[in-house]
Amino acid sequence: MIRHSVILKLKSDLGLEEKQAFFDAVDKLAVIPNVQKFEVLKQISTKNKFEYGISMEFDNQEQYDFYSNHAEHQAFIQNFWIKSVEDFLEIDYILI
Amino acid sequence: MIRHSVILKLKSDLGLEEKQAFFDAVDKLAVIPNVQKFEVLKQISTKNKFEYGISMEFDNQEQYDFYSNHAEHQAFIQNFWIKSVEDFLEIDYILI
Repeated sequence: MIRHSVILKLKSDLGLEEKQAFFDAVDKLAVIPNVQKFEVLKQISTKNKFEYGISMEFDNQEQYDFYSNHAEHQAFIQNFWIKSVEDFLEIDYILI
Repeated sequence: MIRHSVILKLKSDLGLEEKQAFFDAVDKLAVIPNVQKFEVLKQISTKNKFEYGISMEFDNQEQYDFYSNHAEHQAFIQNFWIKSVEDFLEIDYILI
């Protein structure tokens, strides 16, 4: 199991409609093949600057790579991520 | 549900025995009352500097606070965390 996640802060000048469009686009990532336990999260600790998290699991690295390279994911990056996200951190976990 | 997690990097001069003692102490946090879905994780993305993650869930903020203030957790911070951890980030999530 690989748990892929990203913690992010949206651009502060993002309008409500743009924000909604961003999260609608995020939701569509869940249907890319092999994506499991897809979650959209609100980050509530005051000890970091990030606002949201996206988390998903893959059975193995091949499935993760398939997702990363998938046209839908690439289109999401180009059309929504780059325009909307101010800062982020990718975190990938495996169970010890 | 609140998912409390911390992503961390250990001090680079930590010996094998100290590292083992740290993770043995981490494992004991799982038995503090109300701690659910306790996980110790290895961080494998090359896009950040952190090495490990610890994740757990609570039903609500009261349970989270009870854990944070619990003597076993406080002793862990004093006896293991401060001595062993070089850098960390706390991340707390709720489902949107």
